[in-house]
Amino acid sequence: MKILVTSGGTSEAIDSVRSITNHSTGRLGKIITETLLASGHEVCLMTTKRALKPKAHPNLSIQEINNTNDLLLEMQERIQDYQVLIHSMAVSDYTPVYMTGLEEVQASSNLEEFLNKQNHQAKISSTDEVQVLFLKKTPKIISLVKEWNPTIHLIGFKLLVDVNEYHLVDIARKSLVKNQADLIIANDLTQISENQHHAIFVEKNQLQTVQTKEEIAELLLEKIQAYHS
Amino acid sequence: MKILVTSGGTSEAIDSVRSITNHSTGRLGKIITETLLASGHEVCLMTTKRALKPKAHPNLSIQEINNTNDLLLEMQERIQDYQVLIHSMAVSDYTPVYMTGLEEVQASSNLEEFLNKQNHQAKISSTDEVQVLFLKKTPKIISLVKEWNPTIHLIGFKLLVDVNEYHLVDIARKSLVKNQADLIIANDLTQISENQHHAIFVEKNQLQTVQTKEEIAELLLEKIQAYHS
Repeated sequence: MKILVTSGGTSEAIDSVRSITNHSTGRLGKIITETLLASGHEVCLMTTKRALKPKAHPNLSIQEINNTNDLLLEMQERIQDYQVLIHSMAVSDYTPVYMTGLEEVQASSNLEEFLNKQNHQAKISSTDEVQVLFLKKTPKIISLVKEWNPTIHLIGFKLLVDVNEYHLVDIARKSLVKNQADLIIANDLTQISENQHHAIFVEKNQLQTVQTKEEIAELLLEKIQAYHS
Repeated sequence: MKILVTSGGTSEAIDSVRSITNHSTGRLGKIITETLLASGHEVCLMTTKRALKPKAHPNLSIQEINNTNDLLLEMQERIQDYQVLIHSMAVSDYTPVYMTGLEEVQASSNLEEFLNKQNHQAKISSTDEVQVLFLKKTPKIISLVKEWNPTIHLIGFKLLVDVNEYHLVDIARKSLVKNQADLIIANDLTQISENQHHAIFVEKNQLQTVQTKEEIAELLLEKIQAYHS
């Protein structure tokens, strides 16, 4: 099958020297991609500059993006060509709009004015003791996938931090329904380490738990093979 | 001589999944370190996780730090052991204090209250349409170096973006005086690319211009050898 995998973490520029970055090594996306390639699938890996990447392979194309907007445009353009999307990228929820000193913010009678401003300095001046950064929500790309390609099999991830498992599964289930996904893989940052990656596969009528990145990749492969048959 | 080189860019955590990162590949610090090692100097490279690093060498120790506070503590502890500091790291000017939705900020009668708050969620909720991030200035580490080690030869960098050269040199000269540095290397992001790195060596009575990272490293070596004699 033709499978689109996303990995790594997006960066949203504050100015030309600073960004807000979502942490992600890209290791899981790399292992998933290698597992799919080894089973004969054709993979496009959409990832970020600093993410770990698989070795070259005749059935692999790699495409780098930086920020949420890049991801949106590239995905919209390409998603029609794929039968499965595995969306493991850590996508920024917010992107910077305007940064300024506290005094300018204190002097304002309507904070919403800052949402229409933008910084014109290439490197924002660092004289103020306190700066205030206004950020706006980015589009939820996972929620647009089925509009762009209604027949695609959509596999998403939900990462929370230090929550109980019932809550994690509940949130993943909501994402499953809302985004019309086939599967949401729920995980908690506190249960991810170099050799462990506790994850819960949340489907409409089923929950399955695995413990490592390799097990995530293997179970994903099994799910995808089932879509095919 | 025993030389401390810093490279890479610091990251300041917003929460456990997001950081503000200063961009720096670490390539210049790597080349400087290699040039110094090749001339028999002993180097400690203080750098960040994702920065490029030189190969292992008997006279090289590498120490990783994450954020400005790590850098401050490590440098304060170790700076006495070195005769020269080459401080090429891109250090964050600001660090996050508190992030919240616009509504909470609008409802406040005194914005300074947010400077005493902190986020208790490990991953800040992403329900608000607009978030506001309050940041405070980090300590200027370069200004503390001579207090910690009054006899060290201090070499700093000044990076600006898209400014004219007179302004760049003027700002570098102010940094030279203020921080009691021997040398400030001034550069402009718009004049740095893969094969070019225009830089101006700003000393009390001299200006010298070079065009590549290798030339920066060579001229730095020359300056350092002169301190020795």
